[in-house]
Amino acid sequence: MTVRTHTLPNGFRIVTENMPGLKSAALGIWVTAGGRHERADQNGIAHFLEHMAFKGTSTRSPQQIAEAIEDVGGYINAYTSREMTAYYARVLEDDVELALDVISDILLNPVFDPKEIEVERHVILQEIGQAHDTPDDIIFDWLQEEAFPDQPLGRSILGPAEMVQSFSRDDLSAFVAERYGPGEMILSAAGAVDHDRIVAQAAEVFGGLKPVARGAFDPARWGGGERRVTKRLEQAHMALGFELPGYRAPDLYASQIYSSALGGGMSSRLFQELREKRGLCYTIFAQAGAYSDSGLMTIYAGTGKAEIAELLTLTVAEMKRAADGMTPQEIDRARAQMKAGLLMGLESPSSRAERIARLLSIWGRVPTLEETVARIDAVTAEDVRDIAQRLAEGGSAALALYGPVAKAPALDALTARLAA
Amino acid sequence: MTVRTHTLPNGFRIVTENMPGLKSAALGIWVTAGGRHERADQNGIAHFLEHMAFKGTSTRSPQQIAEAIEDVGGYINAYTSREMTAYYARVLEDDVELALDVISDILLNPVFDPKEIEVERHVILQEIGQAHDTPDDIIFDWLQEEAFPDQPLGRSILGPAEMVQSFSRDDLSAFVAERYGPGEMILSAAGAVDHDRIVAQAAEVFGGLKPVARGAFDPARWGGGERRVTKRLEQAHMALGFELPGYRAPDLYASQIYSSALGGGMSSRLFQELREKRGLCYTIFAQAGAYSDSGLMTIYAGTGKAEIAELLTLTVAEMKRAADGMTPQEIDRARAQMKAGLLMGLESPSSRAERIARLLSIWGRVPTLEETVARIDAVTAEDVRDIAQRLAEGGSAALALYGPVAKAPALDALTARLAA
Repeated sequence: MTVRTHTLPNGFRIVTENMPGLKSAALGIWVTAGGRHERADQNGIAHFLEHMAFKGTSTRSPQQIAEAIEDVGGYINAYTSREMTAYYARVLEDDVELALDVISDILLNPVFDPKEIEVERHVILQEIGQAHDTPDDIIFDWLQEEAFPDQPLGRSILGPAEMVQSFSRDDLSAFVAERYGPGEMILSAAGAVDHDRIVAQAAEVFGGLKPVARGAFDPARWGGGERRVTKRLEQAHMALGFELPGYRAPDLYASQIYSSALGGGMSSRLFQELREKRGLCYTIFAQAGAYSDSGLMTIYAGTGKAEIAELLTLTVAEMKRAADGMTPQEIDRARAQMKAGLLMGLESPSSRAERIARLLSIWGRVPTLEETVARIDAVTAEDVRDIAQRLAEGGSAALALYGPVAKAPALDALTARLAA
Repeated sequence: MTVRTHTLPNGFRIVTENMPGLKSAALGIWVTAGGRHERADQNGIAHFLEHMAFKGTSTRSPQQIAEAIEDVGGYINAYTSREMTAYYARVLEDDVELALDVISDILLNPVFDPKEIEVERHVILQEIGQAHDTPDDIIFDWLQEEAFPDQPLGRSILGPAEMVQSFSRDDLSAFVAERYGPGEMILSAAGAVDHDRIVAQAAEVFGGLKPVARGAFDPARWGGGERRVTKRLEQAHMALGFELPGYRAPDLYASQIYSSALGGGMSSRLFQELREKRGLCYTIFAQAGAYSDSGLMTIYAGTGKAEIAELLTLTVAEMKRAADGMTPQEIDRARAQMKAGLLMGLESPSSRAERIARLLSIWGRVPTLEETVARIDAVTAEDVRDIAQRLAEGGSAALALYGPVAKAPALDALTARLAA
């Protein structure tokens, strides 16, 4: 591994990792500006802004942006999460400079043409419609709202349709001015990349950006509660959420091992008990998500309307059983899955670029693979049981239900059973 | 590239590609047995069988199957398509032998325990429910049925719920006896793999399989027609299909370049005209799918109920305009995208294992990258225009509509407009 980092005088950071033998590269800019950096009256603007990046710069039309990258066979895309917005491309090695040129252009020089804003407003309203038509998409928005109510972290990334209807050019510019400072940006590149050339190009393009005072944002406040939306669907969908530590917490890896052993793979307890033994569901999983100051374990499953009560009761029973401790084999298996996943991910430039950007953003440096592995290895059965017990006894969870869910027990009954 | 192939005396084929520098591998068995190899009264059995592979062998319980692979941090999965069923795993290099042992065990020694069949029946019924709850999943099943009506190629992979209700142990065994001969199996492995060791292990495990006479299957017969399902959804979803050449046809790459330039990326005509200029949709794409004797170009988009007529009319207008010819720039861009996609795919062991298995299955050998690139380079603007004209003037298309689609024009009106 040859991870190299560099910081420009204005705070803009660059991290690269050359991967010998590769003929392609992944690169992008990760900006610490996402849904949770929005005020209530801005909900959806980070994502709207991400869309507008592709809608024309001072020198390129939307079509020219797309053609610049696709002419050389590459692709370019972006995503908005709750704590980050990322703009990234994948190209062959000769086109890294071009890709960086395009990404920096769309990030720094968007024109926000009012006509294009109107067009993109319609696109985003369709995106919202699509999410609402997909039960196992929209249910996670509802879970997030219950988990972190009345705060930016709980609001949807896309924003409500009414708010998307209202955003103006000035709203977009204001969000950029507040949140897109050079200190919030990380340029990350992995694969067939040359650190020095990327630093030189980045210095030229981003070196002139004026630092912006880092904006505050609301700390996460766990809420918990239930949202039940009855609808005529084939499946009764459920998403159950519990508070986990944030990504800088010492027990981060314990919480990930717990979630993995509970519902992370085919050998996990939930998969074995609910799907393999009882045939209650096709999709079922538990996964640990982490933010800077909090986290969320999500358990999702879809089942029949007659089985939703059994599914929820058994899920809670498995969590309760896990609080009595998991076997060393289960913990070692979850550990092996995390480590192998890490190693396999390192073979893809896209995963590497994403990984080093995130690590630099969290820690201000890129911990070595050995450091990460050592932290995973250090997790004990007691650490995992502590997490399991804390969740079981905490008395608070978030629950979203969608579909023919009339027979689902109330959340209070489930948490009482879990804590009993 | 160091692709090596080997055929056992019983017809079982092995193809491997060592990728220097990698520490992991992808391997699997691709069986030429999918949805289109089912009789009408077997619809769904190939997929049911795929599920049952994980439900216990003569020496491993379902839990032991999952644990065997996940203990070493790997993962194992399977999929059923219309012409293939694949069972595959991804592991670190030391665990290749183990992974092959597990995959061969689940393929050769499933026990089809009647109790497990009942459990898995419920799982598959939930999978069917999930597909029906996802508009941009189920709509492609409906399109396929319209494109290839009353024939195996047009039926859904999952099968109708009533048929899934009826399958027995004997039905599963009969399908295996008819379709899972060694001549229909390809073991493919890529990454940190050793050809000779894999061949030796495969010979031991698969060498004793008795050849099975290759079963016939119905040739594809294009139908065309419209299916319109009105439902209260946020979006009006449409999938439009046209007949394309099969994967051995000389004009395969011309058809792929056409589809790509029409709707394959951000710079494509459909994306630019319908999304970027008019904001009619969030998702829109065209893609070319190929079978052994036919193919299907699918155009999909989701829009609002007031915009569905405009969306369809404009889609057809773009296809008509494409029939007048595309610019050399557009064709070169689609070409560059295909070639770069190929090169980037080669950097992932999973993509490589899949690719060499498919190529061996189609051609009986693995054409070199140079051969494939030469075929892509050989496509001319005239070849692409021929495809575009054939589709426009053919007078036949398949259309599936789902949601608030009352205002959508009839398919006949669209094809008439296209051919005019």
